[in-house]
Amino acid sequence: MERIPILKMGEFLLVSIQVDMHDRLALTLQDDLTAGIVKHRARGVMIDISALEMVDSFIGRMLSNIANMARLLDAQTVVVGMQPSVAITLVELGLPMRGIPTALDVEKGIALLDAAIRGASGNGSAVL
Amino acid sequence: MERIPILKMGEFLLVSIQVDMHDRLALTLQDDLTAGIVKHRARGVMIDISALEMVDSFIGRMLSNIANMARLLDAQTVVVGMQPSVAITLVELGLPMRGIPTALDVEKGIALLDAAIRGASGNGSAVL
Repeated sequence: MERIPILKMGEFLLVSIQVDMHDRLALTLQDDLTAGIVKHRARGVMIDISALEMVDSFIGRMLSNIANMARLLDAQTVVVGMQPSVAITLVELGLPMRGIPTALDVEKGIALLDAAIRGASGNGSAVL
Repeated sequence: MERIPILKMGEFLLVSIQVDMHDRLALTLQDDLTAGIVKHRARGVMIDISALEMVDSFIGRMLSNIANMARLLDAQTVVVGMQPSVAITLVELGLPMRGIPTALDVEKGIALLDAAIRGASGNGSAVL
């Protein structure tokens, strides 16, 4: 179980983080996810963290990095399923995750990505 | 990280198994999943095992048990993302998973569940 699976759902990718992250696993996830965005021409990435009961600054930075990488590849990231204690910890760590929208569950995340993508294409402009 | 998250997607539930299963975790998953089926009135369950590079008879039995429990609650189970080596091992273990449909990825799994449910309701009969 060396890598975190990436599930393709239409034009979105879904990643469910359930295991303790360490450096190598985070790098593998970044590689797999960016490759997946390009391969599947994905427009959005959902990162489910409902299994995480606590986070540290390493996880917080990893989520930020993934969102920034996805944005450079023209894909929007949404973090879904955050537990209340995680929200508290992230703010206390000084990582308020600005620029990364959140949704309470996968369904709301899909709706949010749909709206973001339709909004962007409705203006006839790509999100840069 | 004591439990495996269950993601709600429309009328289906999605479980992605990424960690080594042990007795207690399997029991917790059975409890959570059956409760989730009833709570959300789910019609289908997708179990993603793309992260599993090998299985043993314990995992095989767990998958069978979950499918049987879901069936009793009027939900259809699909196993998605099985790796070739896992298919080989399951047959060699004498666990060919009869009665549990499989799909190569989540999208095909959703299509399969949709067809199964529409087929059942098209006949005007519930699957017993």
